[in-house]
Amino acid sequence: MIKVGVNGYGVIGRRVAYAVSLQDDMELSGIAKREPDYKARTAARNGFNIYSDNRDEFKARGIQLKGSVEELLSDSDIIVDCTPEGVGSENKKLYEKAGCRAIWQGGEEHELTSLSFNAYANYSNSLDARFSRVVSCNTTGLVRSLFPLTEIGIEHVNGVLIRRAADPSETKKGPINALEPDTSMPSHHAEDVRTIMPDLKIDTVAIKASTTLMHLQYLEVELARESSKDEVLKVWGKYNRLALVSSADGIKNTAHVMDYAKDMRRGGGDMYEIAIWNEIGVKGSRLSYFQAVHQESDVVPENIDAIRAMCGIEKEGSASIKKTDSSLKIGV
Amino acid sequence: MIKVGVNGYGVIGRRVAYAVSLQDDMELSGIAKREPDYKARTAARNGFNIYSDNRDEFKARGIQLKGSVEELLSDSDIIVDCTPEGVGSENKKLYEKAGCRAIWQGGEEHELTSLSFNAYANYSNSLDARFSRVVSCNTTGLVRSLFPLTEIGIEHVNGVLIRRAADPSETKKGPINALEPDTSMPSHHAEDVRTIMPDLKIDTVAIKASTTLMHLQYLEVELARESSKDEVLKVWGKYNRLALVSSADGIKNTAHVMDYAKDMRRGGGDMYEIAIWNEIGVKGSRLSYFQAVHQESDVVPENIDAIRAMCGIEKEGSASIKKTDSSLKIGV
Amino acid sequence: MIKVGVNGYGVIGRRVAYAVSLQDDMELSGIAKREPDYKARTAARNGFNIYSDNRDEFKARGIQLKGSVEELLSDSDIIVDCTPEGVGSENKKLYEKAGCRAIWQGGEEHELTSLSFNAYANYSNSLDARFSRVVSCNTTGLVRSLFPLTEIGIEHVNGVLIRRAADPSETKKGPINALEPDTSMPSHHAEDVRTIMPDLKIDTVAIKASTTLMHLQYLEVELARESSKDEVLKVWGKYNRLALVSSADGIKNTAHVMDYAKDMRRGGGDMYEIAIWNEIGVKGSRLSYFQAVHQESDVVPENIDAIRAMCGIEKEGSASIKKTDSSLKIGV
Amino acid sequence: MIKVGVNGYGVIGRRVAYAVSLQDDMELSGIAKREPDYKARTAARNGFNIYSDNRDEFKARGIQLKGSVEELLSDSDIIVDCTPEGVGSENKKLYEKAGCRAIWQGGEEHELTSLSFNAYANYSNSLDARFSRVVSCNTTGLVRSLFPLTEIGIEHVNGVLIRRAADPSETKKGPINALEPDTSMPSHHAEDVRTIMPDLKIDTVAIKASTTLMHLQYLEVELARESSKDEVLKVWGKYNRLALVSSADGIKNTAHVMDYAKDMRRGGGDMYEIAIWNEIGVKGSRLSYFQAVHQESDVVPENIDAIRAMCGIEKEGSASIKKTDSSLKIGV
Repeated sequence: MIKVGVNGYGVIGRRVAYAVSLQDDMELSGIAKREPDYKARTAARNGFNIYSDNRDEFKARGIQLKGSVEELLSDSDIIVDCTPEGVGSENKKLYEKAGCRAIWQGGEEHELTSLSFNAYANYSNSLDARFSRVVSCNTTGLVRSLFPLTEIGIEHVNGVLIRRAADPSETKKGPINALEPDTSMPSHHAEDVRTIMPDLKIDTVAIKASTTLMHLQYLEVELARESSKDEVLKVWGKYNRLALVSSADGIKNTAHVMDYAKDMRRGGGDMYEIAIWNEIGVKGSRLSYFQAVHQESDVVPENIDAIRAMCGIEKEGSASIKKTDSSLKIGV
Repeated sequence: MIKVGVNGYGVIGRRVAYAVSLQDDMELSGIAKREPDYKARTAARNGFNIYSDNRDEFKARGIQLKGSVEELLSDSDIIVDCTPEGVGSENKKLYEKAGCRAIWQGGEEHELTSLSFNAYANYSNSLDARFSRVVSCNTTGLVRSLFPLTEIGIEHVNGVLIRRAADPSETKKGPINALEPDTSMPSHHAEDVRTIMPDLKIDTVAIKASTTLMHLQYLEVELARESSKDEVLKVWGKYNRLALVSSADGIKNTAHVMDYAKDMRRGGGDMYEIAIWNEIGVKGSRLSYFQAVHQESDVVPENIDAIRAMCGIEKEGSASIKKTDSSLKIGV
Repeated sequence: MIKVGVNGYGVIGRRVAYAVSLQDDMELSGIAKREPDYKARTAARNGFNIYSDNRDEFKARGIQLKGSVEELLSDSDIIVDCTPEGVGSENKKLYEKAGCRAIWQGGEEHELTSLSFNAYANYSNSLDARFSRVVSCNTTGLVRSLFPLTEIGIEHVNGVLIRRAADPSETKKGPINALEPDTSMPSHHAEDVRTIMPDLKIDTVAIKASTTLMHLQYLEVELARESSKDEVLKVWGKYNRLALVSSADGIKNTAHVMDYAKDMRRGGGDMYEIAIWNEIGVKGSRLSYFQAVHQESDVVPENIDAIRAMCGIEKEGSASIKKTDSSLKIGV
Repeated sequence: MIKVGVNGYGVIGRRVAYAVSLQDDMELSGIAKREPDYKARTAARNGFNIYSDNRDEFKARGIQLKGSVEELLSDSDIIVDCTPEGVGSENKKLYEKAGCRAIWQGGEEHELTSLSFNAYANYSNSLDARFSRVVSCNTTGLVRSLFPLTEIGIEHVNGVLIRRAADPSETKKGPINALEPDTSMPSHHAEDVRTIMPDLKIDTVAIKASTTLMHLQYLEVELARESSKDEVLKVWGKYNRLALVSSADGIKNTAHVMDYAKDMRRGGGDMYEIAIWNEIGVKGSRLSYFQAVHQESDVVPENIDAIRAMCGIEKEGSASIKKTDSSLKIGV
């Protein structure tokens, strides 16, 4: 049993810890956290071991600690670093010193690990790797639907990303009522996709919107040859982590996607799949489509697979993906 | 085994059907639905029997029906009517004709049944009743925290209800950016509370806000005698369906309450409990407090208890409540 | 003096009436309105003649009428129809019968008039026309920045339109928290642009966002030849109704654009200009840019110019535009 | 002519500067600003003198300065300090050294000046004062409608303040979708009201809502004697800076109030008046009402009056108010 520690227990960390706890080939050694807040209390109630360097504050709030962050590292074979953007990279030397493997999230730069991960596209690259990085929610969404299309062949991709401005619980962040273009064109997402699919010709721009639920992405893909709606949908249909949804079925927007996710009643209402509207456009070799990305959870199964790859539990990506999907009820 | 049918499969209906499916003393005979949309598909995937009078449209969309709405009635001992406000009352004659019991939701008038239900306050009133009505989400919230205070005694209550303007999935409704007072003072909620607690002196006003997550209620209670924070919190502490939360713990707003609810990972991230901030004010006999109401789910356990009361499965409210809470992991 | 009547006194009607009242070559004969609400009261306070077929209700609310809608038609040389989408087309026979000219807004179909108007692009087409139609806010925005680029030459345009879901005062409309793709691709805007620029190769898609302030448009233009940022900005710089704004100057989003507009303190804080971020991308012949459209007001100067063209007061578009811009302080 | 300098040129500073520029007994010596952003450009276009200690950055952005902040102080008889909360108090020693008078905004503590200002309630207190402070937008709203009621007599006031979470241009601030109670009960507003009306018995609580337009306040007032709707409305009717609005007239929410304000087309669409819904409740001596406060502008006329009082231009508050209201078209 691989011992997995989760460092940072916010939006992603809590979900990764929960997902780890559902696997039969790994166990959660514990989670590390700075603040003794309601999230810490729930972790305790869940029976998770809590580690922190904030010993006095946790004591004052009556939350029991198992040990320090350093102790979590020595109690773990691999750490999933879910600390805030920028903090994660500073933890690298700790992990090096402790001799444990580590996975970072997409908030950190590719250069930190020189290795980025997506289960469908490059699982085997991270086999036995000491350090790797799961790409961001938006990049994961892009790779999930674009990688399958390489079966047909991709000449070029243009992506317009309408980003949720804040997660539901990030209540200090706005805007409450505005649309904000990212005037640095192209946005950084294109380059981030190429850390996974190095030869892909892709341009992206990003816009921030007053919503918390999901990112919405609009993609225009110049395929290598003429195709058809049926062919494209059939290609995507092979992949569990893509959920084809339909406006005609009443799923008209990101709120409906999340309503659908809640109705599946898998742990907290998350939407691990990328939701692609099946009302796609295909004209000759030109494909256009919309997809929605649940920024809080789409990377969760990727982290589980990255653990398996790096720790060498599963040599085949497809086998790991199958296990992960089954445990999280993805594609059921 | 009591056979429970759910008529109407939207925000409340889906949650009640799911909750029924978790009980060991009742079974879900099926759900009735008009539109063959994504909710119907998920019901089918859940293995629920689907009934509809919209036979052709369901057939066209490839969703199998068990029968008509009338057939659901004859296949059920009791119907939970979760159809839209105003539609419910028109169904009464159908239920009368079919000879089944029926529960309506708070969107319908008290006069429809002359009997309203809250598990803590008046469970026994609905014992063996043919027809009853679970009061609305806001009223359920008010009764949940006020009824326990009758142990101390209540002289008078003033409530200011800041209502979420739309449910998350009601994406056609606004406002996107406004606050709207209900200028009919007092609002109807005060009278609705008195359908459960007939002698309570209470005034309420309501304001609509641009949010989808929860209602926020501010209550000022003139108690019958001097009290203290400790006494009030201790009284509330006896009740599972009240969750004391704390700003000091990081739960600063309704988004944090829902984040906390998701983290408990009970079926879809619902918050069945009324969240009361434990930062209350008590000055002499004057108590002030804030509480948040998850309008999509707080009435769900009430419906389950109402089924037990009306079908006579449990004579004691406390026993029914215990069963319901255990099945839904309330108060864990 | 041309006598101008405004039929419909909502978001657009009020602004057109106000703009008409500022011109020295036309006078506002009056406005027609159905509801005796606060807008009617303000019209009365402004000294505008009010016409309605709702005589009794206006009387009951104490607002004086000048006459019926039919009387407004006979008191006017030209009517600007600002009634709600769909209602406008039904008014055509009234205008035909009354013998007055009429302008419709972009909510109506091009087929109603077989003639659509934009001051920069096709002023002369509407000279002496009996009926014409000012294209919608979004289309006006597209034409305003694309028409000048024909100086360089346009091969093809791709537009992604992130639309405000409701106007600030349309408080019944949502969504409060969602992004909604228009899955009919391409959206109708492309065709609408071609009612003005018939030979333009353009594709558009649209997404609805939870905001009320402005539409945000992202445009990718394949120019006929290589160009440069400087050349493109210089071309646009000749046009008053384009306002080049800058993220570097602190105008980072649509809320800042509207803040800037308020600070100009022209009648109510409107933004008649299309705001183009000067942080554009030009790579070879490929131009990318963001622009924001104030849906409540960008068509107002267009309506004024359309009046002049149709009534033959000014034969030259440039002369009319100059008058209009000066009266509304556009480009000051 | 009194020379007025405005230090800080954000939401309030820009409006005060504009209002000063409309008075015939004062002149705007200039405005001081840190950032050479779009607001600075508009100030320059308006012909205002700009002062800053950020000489190099202004030069780099091509915006001409008149001098340093210190020079603005020496060029001014009185400074209106509109710098961000907390910064203002640190400026006191500068103003003391420069020998000029100064007015602060409600973000600063009463203790800074030991003198707070509202034109209706205590104009004469600030006559010839060296330093004074205009109370905050919320407090100004409370005092405006409560002070007139002292004519009838007030026993006690309970106020529930639903605050806009951010100004329209404060796009970094959230929450996008939440309601947040201020669990420090009572909120600080009650005490702030007493800096103006020292003997008033008032309690307040505050809630933050996902909106940018206006604060909404709900007030319950125990009057000294029985009264009637007519009497209360008549009392308020004497005061220009209270605008009685009506749900029956179609003004149903804060967005409609701002729509109405725009329609008056006074400099940028501001709502200087407190909007009180005339659908009030009066039962015996108990008065209940809703009012909306435009946080960006209601204090603007107060600042103008405070200048007159402090500089001794007008000894009578009523005379100053009349001048101010006429210049800003308040109560027209």
